Amino acid sequence: MSAVNRQIRLARRPVGEVGPEDWEHVSEPAAAPGEGQFAGRTRFISLDPAMRGWLDDRPSYLPPVGLGEVMRAGSVVEVTESNHPGFGIGDLVVGSFGVQEHVVSDGRGALRIDPSAAPASTFLGALGMPGMTAYFGLLDVGALQEGETVVVSGAAGAVGTLVGQIAKAKGCRVVGIAGGAEKCALLTGELGFDAAIDYRSEDVKKALRTHAPDGIDVYFDNVGGDILDAALAQLAMRARVVVCGAISQYNSTTGVQGPSNYLSLLVRRARMEGFVVFDYAPRFAEAARELGAWIAAGRITVLEHVVRGTLDDFPQTLQMLFRGENTGKLVLELV
Amino acid sequence: MSAVNRQIRLARRPVGEVGPEDWEHVSEPAAAPGEGQFAGRTRFISLDPAMRGWLDDRPSYLPPVGLGEVMRAGSVVEVTESNHPGFGIGDLVVGSFGVQEHVVSDGRGALRIDPSAAPASTFLGALGMPGMTAYFGLLDVGALQEGETVVVSGAAGAVGTLVGQIAKAKGCRVVGIAGGAEKCALLTGELGFDAAIDYRSEDVKKALRTHAPDGIDVYFDNVGGDILDAALAQLAMRARVVVCGAISQYNSTTGVQGPSNYLSLLVRRARMEGFVVFDYAPRFAEAARELGAWIAAGRITVLEHVVRGTLDDFPQTLQMLFRGENTGKLVLELV
Repeated sequence: MSAVNRQIRLARRPVGEVGPEDWEHVSEPAAAPGEGQFAGRTRFISLDPAMRGWLDDRPSYLPPVGLGEVMRAGSVVEVTESNHPGFGIGDLVVGSFGVQEHVVSDGRGALRIDPSAAPASTFLGALGMPGMTAYFGLLDVGALQEGETVVVSGAAGAVGTLVGQIAKAKGCRVVGIAGGAEKCALLTGELGFDAAIDYRSEDVKKALRTHAPDGIDVYFDNVGGDILDAALAQLAMRARVVVCGAISQYNSTTGVQGPSNYLSLLVRRARMEGFVVFDYAPRFAEAARELGAWIAAGRITVLEHVVRGTLDDFPQTLQMLFRGENTGKLVLELV
Repeated sequence: MSAVNRQIRLARRPVGEVGPEDWEHVSEPAAAPGEGQFAGRTRFISLDPAMRGWLDDRPSYLPPVGLGEVMRAGSVVEVTESNHPGFGIGDLVVGSFGVQEHVVSDGRGALRIDPSAAPASTFLGALGMPGMTAYFGLLDVGALQEGETVVVSGAAGAVGTLVGQIAKAKGCRVVGIAGGAEKCALLTGELGFDAAIDYRSEDVKKALRTHAPDGIDVYFDNVGGDILDAALAQLAMRARVVVCGAISQYNSTTGVQGPSNYLSLLVRRARMEGFVVFDYAPRFAEAARELGAWIAAGRITVLEHVVRGTLDDFPQTLQMLFRGENTGKLVLELV
C-alpha cells in the first residue's frame, strides 16, 4: 500500500462564500486496513448544500468540521482490500468517508450497494440522503395528503427534483421554484411538475397567487429568504412548511434573514417544522424500496449532475451549488 | 328608549401606535330591541392586543374593522329590555358587542353568564377568550406534557399569566418573560412561576440558558421580535413554539421583524405553529370547566387590571396594552 492518499482538508473557517483559500490539498500515504477493516478507493463524492453549515463553528445537528480535518462528505468507494467479512474486493460501498482518494473503514455507517439496482452515484442522490430527505420531509414532516398543492423551492436541485416527483406520484399538484428558464422548462417538461416559477425573472409572490390560487398546503423550503416569505404569504389553512434548508442564507455575512411573514402561521393555523434526515435512519430501507419502485416504473426521473475530475476539483465543484449551476444531484466522479 | 348610545368608531387607519386621533366619539339614540332581540347596557369592555391587528386593512382571521364602524370588542352587558326568550332583564351577557354604551342583539354569539360562578369581568379574561387562548394554545397546539419546561413571553398579561399557571397545574417547570421587576416578582411570587426574566434589564438569551438549561420544550410567544429569537436559540429537541401573538411588532411601521433564528427549528427538529382561538369554540365549555375548577381550587389566581371610567377612556386604556402598563387582563368598567 504505497499509494498516495490525496485529501481536501479545512484550512480555515470561511466567511461568506467558500473559496479555494479555505481548503488545503494534502497528500499522505494511504493506510492499510487493520483487522476487521477494509480499504477503498473513492469513486464518487457527494456535494450538498448542508456542507456549508458544517464549516461554521457553531452548535448544530452535527459537530462542525474541525480545522485541519478531512472535509466531511458522503461518497461511494470501491473496496480494494478487505479484512472485513461483510465487504469484498470490488464491492461498492456508500458512507460518510470524506473528501479523500483512499479510505479505511471498519464498516460502521457503511452500506454495500447493489450495482444492478441503480448506478453507483444514485446512492448519493435519489437512493441516498437527498432521496431520504425528500421522502421523509414531504411525507412525514409535511404529512402530505393526496390532492394537496405542494410548492418546493430549490426545485431543480437534488432534493427539490425528488420532492416534486414524489408529490406527483402521491397525486398532488406541484409547483416548483427555480432559477432560470432552462431549469423551469425541465421541471414542467421532463419532471412533470404542474407549474414552475423562475425566481430570477418573476415576482414569486404574484406567481404563487397564480399557480396556487387556493393556497399552498405543503411548502418544502430549501432556500429561505425572500422566497420563504413569498410562500408564507400564500399558505392555505392548516398548511405545513417543511424547513429543509436555507441555501440563500448559508453564505450570508450579515446574519440570517428571518421570515417576516411568519405571522401567516397564526392567520392560517399553519405550522413550520424542521427535521434532520438522520433521525429517519431506521426507516431508510422502507423509503429506498418505494423510491426504487417509482424509479423502476419511470414515475421518478433521476437527475444527476456529474462532474468528472480529480479531488482538486472539489472546491470549485462545491461553489456550483451556491451559484445554482447544478441541475439535480451534484456529484464529483474521480477519474 | 330615549337613551343616548355613545360609541367609539374607527376614524382612520392608524400608522404605528394607535392614537386618540384615530377614533371618533359618536352619540346616537339607543335602538330599541325588535322581535327576538334584547337590549343591554355595557358594563365591561375587553381590551386585547389583537385589536391592533383588526385596525389594519389586510386579510387576517377576521375582516378589518371598517372606517366609521363601531370598534369591535368583547364586552359584558346587562340586559335592560328583552323580546328574546333566552335573555331576561338583569341578565349579564358576554359577546362581541363593540365599544358602545348600548347594544341590541338577537343573541347570536351571546352567552348568558352565571354571576355566582365568577365576577362578570372574568368572563372577558380567565373564563373568556384569554383563558381559552391560553388553554388550547398550550395544551392543544403546544401539546404540553407533564414535566416539560415551558417559557411564556408577555407573561404578566392576560394570556401569559394563565399560560404559566396552567403549565404549573399540569406539573411543568415555568419561566415567564415580562417587563419590569414588579411584574417579575408577581410571577414568581403570587403566581408560582419557577423563574421570571425581566427583558428590560436582563439579557434574555443568557437568562434562558440559566433558567432553562436543558432547553425549552414549549415556548408560548405573545411578543415576537428579539424575544422570540432568544427563545428559538434555546429550544430543546422536538420543541413546540406556539405563535399566539407578536405585540412587539403590531405598531411597527417598518414591517414585522422575522425570527432570524428560525433555522433552530431544523437543528432541534422543532415546530412553530399558529392558531386562532375561535376554531376551538366547540370545546370552550370543556376548557371553562377545567379553568373554573382550578380557579375554585386556588390553583389559578385570576389577575385583572380594571380601569373604571367612561367610554371616552377607551383610547388611552387601549394604549396601556402596548406600553406594558397592565398586569393581567385589562378591562374597562363603565361607571
